Amino acid sequence: MPPSPADALSHDLRERANRIRLACFDVDGTLTDGRLLFDTAGRELKAFHVHDGQGLVLLRKCGITVAFVTARASAVAEHRAAELGLEAHTGVADKLACVQAIAARLGVGLDRVAFMGDDLPDLRIMAQVGLSIAPADAHAWVRDRVHWRTAACAGHGAARELSDLLLAAQGHAERLLADATRIEGTRLEGKA
Amino acid sequence: MPPSPADALSHDLRERANRIRLACFDVDGTLTDGRLLFDTAGRELKAFHVHDGQGLVLLRKCGITVAFVTARASAVAEHRAAELGLEAHTGVADKLACVQAIAARLGVGLDRVAFMGDDLPDLRIMAQVGLSIAPADAHAWVRDRVHWRTAACAGHGAARELSDLLLAAQGHAERLLADATRIEGTRLEGKA
Amino acid sequence: MPPSPADALSHDLRERANRIRLACFDVDGTLTDGRLLFDTAGRELKAFHVHDGQGLVLLRKCGITVAFVTARASAVAEHRAAELGLEAHTGVADKLACVQAIAARLGVGLDRVAFMGDDLPDLRIMAQVGLSIAPADAHAWVRDRVHWRTAACAGHGAARELSDLLLAAQGHAERLLADATRIEGTRLEGKA
Amino acid sequence: MPPSPADALSHDLRERANRIRLACFDVDGTLTDGRLLFDTAGRELKAFHVHDGQGLVLLRKCGITVAFVTARASAVAEHRAAELGLEAHTGVADKLACVQAIAARLGVGLDRVAFMGDDLPDLRIMAQVGLSIAPADAHAWVRDRVHWRTAACAGHGAARELSDLLLAAQGHAERLLADATRIEGTRLEGKA
Repeated sequence: MPPSPADALSHDLRERANRIRLACFDVDGTLTDGRLLFDTAGRELKAFHVHDGQGLVLLRKCGITVAFVTARASAVAEHRAAELGLEAHTGVADKLACVQAIAARLGVGLDRVAFMGDDLPDLRIMAQVGLSIAPADAHAWVRDRVHWRTAACAGHGAARELSDLLLAAQGHAERLLADATRIEGTRLEGKA
Repeated sequence: MPPSPADALSHDLRERANRIRLACFDVDGTLTDGRLLFDTAGRELKAFHVHDGQGLVLLRKCGITVAFVTARASAVAEHRAAELGLEAHTGVADKLACVQAIAARLGVGLDRVAFMGDDLPDLRIMAQVGLSIAPADAHAWVRDRVHWRTAACAGHGAARELSDLLLAAQGHAERLLADATRIEGTRLEGKA
Repeated sequence: MPPSPADALSHDLRERANRIRLACFDVDGTLTDGRLLFDTAGRELKAFHVHDGQGLVLLRKCGITVAFVTARASAVAEHRAAELGLEAHTGVADKLACVQAIAARLGVGLDRVAFMGDDLPDLRIMAQVGLSIAPADAHAWVRDRVHWRTAACAGHGAARELSDLLLAAQGHAERLLADATRIEGTRLEGKA
Repeated sequence: MPPSPADALSHDLRERANRIRLACFDVDGTLTDGRLLFDTAGRELKAFHVHDGQGLVLLRKCGITVAFVTARASAVAEHRAAELGLEAHTGVADKLACVQAIAARLGVGLDRVAFMGDDLPDLRIMAQVGLSIAPADAHAWVRDRVHWRTAACAGHGAARELSDLLLAAQGHAERLLADATRIEGTRLEGKA
């Protein structure tokens, strides 16, 4: 097995990651590279990354609730969340209240919530949760106020890094890898 | 608080930034990464960056007028400006005359105007304003004739750097950060 | 002639490349840069690279069967494959079974199959084929389990590198280059 | 004035650039970054760069004929060429014959033609013209057979570098810069 992202992490970070039951993600500049593409009719297009989607689905399958929480109203974000079997909260005026409501519904405290965001409107909720994470290219105001920054940029695998961290910290990574290479009940060895 | 972009800047640059009441931005290659995307019907799409939009809105809320000034007729640019509550001047043949008219309407001289641009048609107006700025990847003819170059490339936060500079130079940055993390009247400490 | 990509490769890798009769490619994150672009109606757009397309067509013309094999249902991937004269298998639940069926139809064993992929769902088939390749930016779980990693990232020439490897290993590269510069039966010398 | 791109160039390259009357450009991977974006209906979108467009228009205004020459049928390429006042030859089976016909129409020999391309189908024409240029990220087969490689990648200013080279070599650069900053007959000094 390759080194898991958790190996080089501090004890504090692994403890935080181990507790997470709800992972919330801002959308633009976090799950996307921040580009808002518009056509001549003013319709918006957005690009999500396939690696991030894979990671979020693995989180869901391992029992962690995943939610998009974004201030921007966006049919595109709702579509992508639905495709991945996740919940989307778009056009959210108060991200802190929104995340508190989801956590209350799940019966978990904010210490069991992770939030990944990249800019000023994310700071209030990020100051309250158990694990705050910023993509490598988040705004400096956010980058300097989080528990962890990913090596990847937003929209290019930053969310996947958080997924990998949570899966490794909670002991799911080895089993997922074994399942992925097993054929008819036989566990295969990796090639390298 | 993280180091503000103004900390390492020259006294002259901070003086110029402190005077600005009107911030004008070219669009293609300044607020976008320069790509003009066309579909088969010849319709144009453009990508703006969410970090830039956040910065321009903060400028507006702090009393600085923000305008898009572009030679290219563009419904997309008009849409994005409207969405951010900013004014757009598109299909502009004479950028100098356009900016002079906006400044006159506001009753400010060109020494209180900032202009961010990236190519030959921006040089005339940029030679006249109090603060001229180029994205890191502006054409060499422009890069070498400005008061300041951003570290970020066009369409990837260059406009946000200018916003951060103006907000810091005019003393708004600390208050904005404090507001962003305050809950019910209580000012929270940043985590790091 | 410039150094072919095979020059610096190990004997084992060249042997593997020399045997390949079927080259299969995952799509998102392998033939594309992993971005899934959606419009407001939820329709998906994808970007393929012209260099990759050129390489896949050269493989086909040199007698190697090329197939897209992707778990994601995608009219875009089918369109691109058809344009290049290749076969596309989209919405594939079991990639191993799919590739085995193509190989059986061609009457070749899995040792004569190359598979290029980037993430967890590609691991099972990649563990079975004669040559497994990952783009430079594949997920770490895949990057560490392949026979070869390309220098190029997915969607930016990674598939072309594999094409170049196979063409060089099977002795087609010099003839293709000669044909490309020959005028009316006269073979021209390269300029540098 | 900043150092012109011609300053560090060899005498041979400047001589070649000085003779050019016709500049031809491949499209995908030369004027674009090589990405072919498709929607679900199979319609193609392409991104051109605003810096390249500016350079091509300056060439035209300085009397150099500019033409797009591409094997791929493309309404998008035709649209972009028309917008810039240039000629487009798309769906071209024989690039050498196409460029020879344009040169004959203009009454110039191939030694007065520049061709910028990035892949195998460009090699035959590029071996015949007075100046062959490849973007930084052209395929190795092309990169190693040209008179000059740009520092910029395709679709990110590579064509502009060639424009700058031709304008400098033919003595137009200083006048263009002076015109761009002159106000009502007065020539302004650059700021830096």
